[in-house]
Amino acid sequence: MAGDRSDHRVLQYEQSLMYGRYTQELGVYAKEEATRLKESGEKVSQRSRTLEHDNGRCAKFGPFRWLRFLISLIGEDWIFFFLLGILMGLASWAMELGINMLLKGQKWVYGRLDSNGFLQYLGWVGYSVALIVFSAGFTQIVSPQAAGSGISEMKTILRGVLLKEYLTFRTFVAKVISLAFALGSGMPLGKEAPFVHIASLCGALLCKLPVFRGIYENESRYREMLAAACAVGVGCVLAAPVGGVLFSIEVTFTFFAVRSYWRGFFSVTIAAFFFRVLAVWYKDEETVTALFRTHFQVDFPFDLKEMPAFALLGIISGFGGALFVYLNRRIALFIKKQKLFNTFLMKKCLVYPVMVSFLISSLLFPSGFGQFMAGELTQNEALVTLLDNRTWTKDGIAEEFDYIGNARVWMHPQVTVFGTLALFTIMRFWMCALAITMPVPYGAFMPVLVIGAGLGRLVGECMAYWFPEGIHAGHAIYPIVPGGYAVVGAAALSGAVSHSFSTVVMVLELTGQISHLLPALIAVVLANLVAQSLQPSIYDSIIKIKKLPYLPELGWGQHEVYNIRVEDIMVRDVQYITLSCSYRDLLNILMKSRLKALPLLTSAESMILLGSIERTQLQSLLSQQLSCARRLQCIKERGAEAKKLLSTESNPPSNNNSSLQTGPEEGHIQVTNEELNPPPVVERPTELSNSSRDESGVTLRSIFCASSDAEEVQDDRDVQDPTSEITDWEARQLDERVNFNNCKINPALIQLLECTSLHKTYTIFSLLGLDHAYVTRIGRLIGVVSIKELRKAIDGSMTLKGVKVAPPMATFRNSSLSSSQNETTYLQAVRPPEEHVTDAPKHVC
Amino acid sequence: MAGDRSDHRVLQYEQSLMYGRYTQELGVYAKEEATRLKESGEKVSQRSRTLEHDNGRCAKFGPFRWLRFLISLIGEDWIFFFLLGILMGLASWAMELGINMLLKGQKWVYGRLDSNGFLQYLGWVGYSVALIVFSAGFTQIVSPQAAGSGISEMKTILRGVLLKEYLTFRTFVAKVISLAFALGSGMPLGKEAPFVHIASLCGALLCKLPVFRGIYENESRYREMLAAACAVGVGCVLAAPVGGVLFSIEVTFTFFAVRSYWRGFFSVTIAAFFFRVLAVWYKDEETVTALFRTHFQVDFPFDLKEMPAFALLGIISGFGGALFVYLNRRIALFIKKQKLFNTFLMKKCLVYPVMVSFLISSLLFPSGFGQFMAGELTQNEALVTLLDNRTWTKDGIAEEFDYIGNARVWMHPQVTVFGTLALFTIMRFWMCALAITMPVPYGAFMPVLVIGAGLGRLVGECMAYWFPEGIHAGHAIYPIVPGGYAVVGAAALSGAVSHSFSTVVMVLELTGQISHLLPALIAVVLANLVAQSLQPSIYDSIIKIKKLPYLPELGWGQHEVYNIRVEDIMVRDVQYITLSCSYRDLLNILMKSRLKALPLLTSAESMILLGSIERTQLQSLLSQQLSCARRLQCIKERGAEAKKLLSTESNPPSNNNSSLQTGPEEGHIQVTNEELNPPPVVERPTELSNSSRDESGVTLRSIFCASSDAEEVQDDRDVQDPTSEITDWEARQLDERVNFNNCKINPALIQLLECTSLHKTYTIFSLLGLDHAYVTRIGRLIGVVSIKELRKAIDGSMTLKGVKVAPPMATFRNSSLSSSQNETTYLQAVRPPEEHVTDAPKHVC
Repeated sequence: MAGDRSDHRVLQYEQSLMYGRYTQELGVYAKEEATRLKESGEKVSQRSRTLEHDNGRCAKFGPFRWLRFLISLIGEDWIFFFLLGILMGLASWAMELGINMLLKGQKWVYGRLDSNGFLQYLGWVGYSVALIVFSAGFTQIVSPQAAGSGISEMKTILRGVLLKEYLTFRTFVAKVISLAFALGSGMPLGKEAPFVHIASLCGALLCKLPVFRGIYENESRYREMLAAACAVGVGCVLAAPVGGVLFSIEVTFTFFAVRSYWRGFFSVTIAAFFFRVLAVWYKDEETVTALFRTHFQVDFPFDLKEMPAFALLGIISGFGGALFVYLNRRIALFIKKQKLFNTFLMKKCLVYPVMVSFLISSLLFPSGFGQFMAGELTQNEALVTLLDNRTWTKDGIAEEFDYIGNARVWMHPQVTVFGTLALFTIMRFWMCALAITMPVPYGAFMPVLVIGAGLGRLVGECMAYWFPEGIHAGHAIYPIVPGGYAVVGAAALSGAVSHSFSTVVMVLELTGQISHLLPALIAVVLANLVAQSLQPSIYDSIIKIKKLPYLPELGWGQHEVYNIRVEDIMVRDVQYITLSCSYRDLLNILMKSRLKALPLLTSAESMILLGSIERTQLQSLLSQQLSCARRLQCIKERGAEAKKLLSTESNPPSNNNSSLQTGPEEGHIQVTNEELNPPPVVERPTELSNSSRDESGVTLRSIFCASSDAEEVQDDRDVQDPTSEITDWEARQLDERVNFNNCKINPALIQLLECTSLHKTYTIFSLLGLDHAYVTRIGRLIGVVSIKELRKAIDGSMTLKGVKVAPPMATFRNSSLSSSQNETTYLQAVRPPEEHVTDAPKHVC
Repeated sequence: MAGDRSDHRVLQYEQSLMYGRYTQELGVYAKEEATRLKESGEKVSQRSRTLEHDNGRCAKFGPFRWLRFLISLIGEDWIFFFLLGILMGLASWAMELGINMLLKGQKWVYGRLDSNGFLQYLGWVGYSVALIVFSAGFTQIVSPQAAGSGISEMKTILRGVLLKEYLTFRTFVAKVISLAFALGSGMPLGKEAPFVHIASLCGALLCKLPVFRGIYENESRYREMLAAACAVGVGCVLAAPVGGVLFSIEVTFTFFAVRSYWRGFFSVTIAAFFFRVLAVWYKDEETVTALFRTHFQVDFPFDLKEMPAFALLGIISGFGGALFVYLNRRIALFIKKQKLFNTFLMKKCLVYPVMVSFLISSLLFPSGFGQFMAGELTQNEALVTLLDNRTWTKDGIAEEFDYIGNARVWMHPQVTVFGTLALFTIMRFWMCALAITMPVPYGAFMPVLVIGAGLGRLVGECMAYWFPEGIHAGHAIYPIVPGGYAVVGAAALSGAVSHSFSTVVMVLELTGQISHLLPALIAVVLANLVAQSLQPSIYDSIIKIKKLPYLPELGWGQHEVYNIRVEDIMVRDVQYITLSCSYRDLLNILMKSRLKALPLLTSAESMILLGSIERTQLQSLLSQQLSCARRLQCIKERGAEAKKLLSTESNPPSNNNSSLQTGPEEGHIQVTNEELNPPPVVERPTELSNSSRDESGVTLRSIFCASSDAEEVQDDRDVQDPTSEITDWEARQLDERVNFNNCKINPALIQLLECTSLHKTYTIFSLLGLDHAYVTRIGRLIGVVSIKELRKAIDGSMTLKGVKVAPPMATFRNSSLSSSQNETTYLQAVRPPEEHVTDAPKHVC
């Protein structure tokens, strides 16, 4: 726990109640972490590869050698995804069992206390609140990363960003247990989105098993595996393999490899099979069928003339979906902004979930307000009744048919069926938007699906009321099936909220009937059309709220992305270092710019890009140049020259730093990268920016010799050397040319052209998970584009939607295109100076 | 027709009967064409953009201005894909109608001639042969590109290769009409794969409408559109929107954008809706339902204990699918290799289809052998009967139930139901593999689906025979449903042949029942597991036969791709040119290498990569330097210096070339790129390679002055100048430094590192549609990888499957990694020479 805390501080992760916010742009930290992990991973893999070549491939893991051999015969991938499937099937089934037990518990408490109304209320509400408090508390204590949906985070992780602690065993435990309790409380939460996270966790943890370590070591394989695991998540929860895989793909990816999709399919088939087979074995179901089986007539499920009603339902759902996302974001941001309120909540971090769960469960209390909105039913029960085959009304009055089981609660003497359905839809709508701001693991998909089913049923019942004989003109009479509308509504609203089409498949798989495919598809298409043009998806909205480093999706109507070019958005004034620069230049640049990496050019004249060097690398170069070891050595040398007696005095302190004195015979000391950690003070360059260049000598001493060891040395020398001498020495050191030999140079493998379109840039950035890219013209650096500029450009072009205007800097573009003189000077600088050039070279985009 | 012919000659496209083969690697030609088209497209777009900025955006297309404005308000994309959907729905419906009429025609002929057995046979076979001959002939005459499935070609096009004539109106007409006739002939062909091509054609043609020209102009938008259009293809044919979109994605892409998938879904929904609505309106169907509706019991569709049988069916289908692909390839390659046979077929290009269709339709003749294998039924009829709800046998004897309609034909007094089913499956199997080698538009999907259904039904009937009471142990008796096995078999075999999982969804959509989802999924997964490890998919197989420029798919078990690195496969001995090279160097390199593009470096010492220049560009540079115009000018200058009277003699011939004499006052003549087409002789560098460097003067004269105009000049001068003078002049010209200013330099935007894995390289090549990429180390060129090396490496690593060995050149790798001295010299060369460097820089993969 203590270790965890310190990690949060590093991440500057505010332990708030809302989602868990990051005050710092998370990307900055995440990238650093990723690099660090990648490096250590590389080292491991290099080591192990050497080992493999030395000892033969089976000698690596003693007891596992035969297992490994067996696995390599059949194929690691197949076995891995088979295991993942079984694990996820088990997890899903166990979760289902646990949640059902907890939900039954609440009903049992409610039933036992029916003698006293107040006690009954207390029991009902207390049960919910207690479970939520446990869930929230457990999440906070064990792993705060487990809170939230998980899809947004996985989206970010798959983009190449490494979020710390998101794929650990601790998080797995926290996520599974908290999720079970949160859902068991009866709050309008779902488990689909968290299962995407859980599946990825399972995959990541499986990778850590010795037999699968081969997968984990290779970064691209690891990411492919994560992508496939993501696709498994949803499918196994709802036993809807096809829809689940598609849904996971739609909400998690921008680009998807068909390879990963196959793996996902394989795994999810196993998972869904196990999930259902376990259900058959343990729950005495007769055989494997759909979760929410419907019994609509197959021969004539709907009439073509009902299509407008389905289309209308789709459009309403579209607006509803956008409203849901908007409402959720407003609530989240409102609570985030209330400073005073927030400070209070921060201290008592369980107050907010208590308040929310108290409010919601009070409203759902079946003997109170809940009786008007079927508060008694759990989500699954509600969904089953909403998909009911029969029509609930006849001529506007609740029909007196034999209400079996749970469907009874929809009939209330005061409000009609229309009333209960409308109340159910509206109340659950804002309740769900509110509930998913709690710091517990949650998914919004299932509650939204149920709300959509309610909305659909409402429209269906209205249709049945208006057209009691059906609207078929032919000889036979086919009455309208409100349950079909519920199916369509469920698909449409969930599709609108998540911006996905695969909800159609999922809903049809859930109901086990495919007859309403076409109306559902049309409704979902219309709902998406409306919702996508109004709001981002719920997952993108959460990404924005959490400020995760992710690019926004390109909308449908954005043609500007094809017309805006890199030159319109790039940063032209790039800070750079050259091969021949001095340490003083380095210092100045480090003080001026806050970039994570600086481009390395051959020279300021040729401007040819060689690669980039990370800030930390440069800092260590600089600190190495002015290191205490070098100071000491300098003193020693001078002392040896001047007086023999002085050298005896300066020796004792140098013994403290004996480890730094290896190889003092050479011109400069060999210090490898691993030994050289940049001094912590340099991490805050804002403080340095005040100090001007002239004072650099003094400043530098305070920076680079701030450690205790160094101060000691400094003190010793201050006695015998005047300050000016130190300043002189430092100035001389700074004037030397930088030796880049111990420096890691990142090659600039992906470069852009000025005329690359924003769309292409976006594609390249998303596909390759880039953070920034340099813009070059025949090898020469002319600008840089980072993810920030890209995000700004995409958001900016969104506001232009519908009206096509010339891109922001288009007026400059044509002139720069025609001014070939410009390019000529570029090429002149590159080429050896003997020849004079008059015409400009052309290049191709 | 004549123009067409000449095009083929350029492409070196042999007009053979098999598929249409390319003797030259198609990629070479295609890339050239793509560049040419892209350039001309760029010019157009540049011109139109200027226009737009000048006149305001609505003034562009006079009569369409208001339409354009309306479209820009709603969003071009939505309208485009709406129109595409409607068009495809219409096309699909019209095609269905036409094919059904033609199929009925054959039955009508058969029925009318039932008085005479031989006449009946003649009518039956003649009808088939005539239609096939028309189809093949029409394809050959109008557009040979229309032959074949289309999926393989679209796969290649979407990879960024531009196949000529594949997306023209001519091809569209040929494809649609030939397809209708080919399918109407009753051959075992399908229409799914051609519809992928037709949908892309529709999209490409729609783009050419003035209102949508904006989409066509931008290359990345055009490709996105094509990707979405591809996804529309299959969905609208089978009215299976979800499965269709997924199938198209699986068989066409390696990576796909979720954006495209949405567009595809939108469009396919419209298409499927229209297709079915038109059917309702015209065919008096009551409402929109599935194409091949089944009526299985919903409550208990299958027992868990039947799972092993389904799994077995999946495995058999897997082997069957692999066998199908193998058989097809053997037939195709066999016929291709028979030289004599082939020459004969070439001349009478309709002989082969006549032979094949005669053979197949003879065997299918219902009164002959066809009576044992339900030859009377069309594919659709056969599928409907195979999906029948009832069991056909009881205790091994064909049950005497009321055979309604077509199901009657399965019962034959001599052979049992098992016999007809087995014969049907086996005969159709090889017939289909044979039929899809004919030069007509074809798809293999639907026939394979029907064969799979036959296989499944056979297994199902066997199960029903072995377990007449069902195998459920409980109280109730649920008999086995052979129709369910047919569904599973159809999905499994078609999945195995096409290497896709989405056939499950498609089959379920076709039958309108989702109850067999889980067994179908399991069977398809197993079938894919078997088939993918034995053979490539049918589409990849066709790509290989046609030698299209496409990368093979990465198989499941290939872990080597993660371990092989670029340094193991790259070409190290790269031919390059430097900024300071002379024309003689250029000439030598052009003679030595046959590369399409040469890398441009700053200098041979620094080796810093600036970009690449295409061969044609370099050739034009060289020919410009030694052009007749320059010769003339030189002569004129010398003449003016030496004698006045000689100049009067040399004037007349120069008048012929007056157009070349613009600006003779300057040091060299300004000739722009457009005027300078490389002389055709240079296109055959193999002839040149014999001539050694010393003779270059003489050789060059023959190369560069081979045109008639030039020879005239040459002749005139030969009289007055000795040959040695010309050689001297040419030698002097060749020693000059190259002026790259009029040259197009392609920037090397994507570079690789030595340590990049093969997997990552494959990903980058597939994603960005690369042809080659340079391998650099801190900006310095050290190698090149082209698609050829990549293909070889992937194919090579396939043979290593199962046994994990060290990658081919791994022994060299470690030494090169540790030899940092190597890199040091590299950096020394890059950096200005003042300083000496001892340690090596490191870089990150």
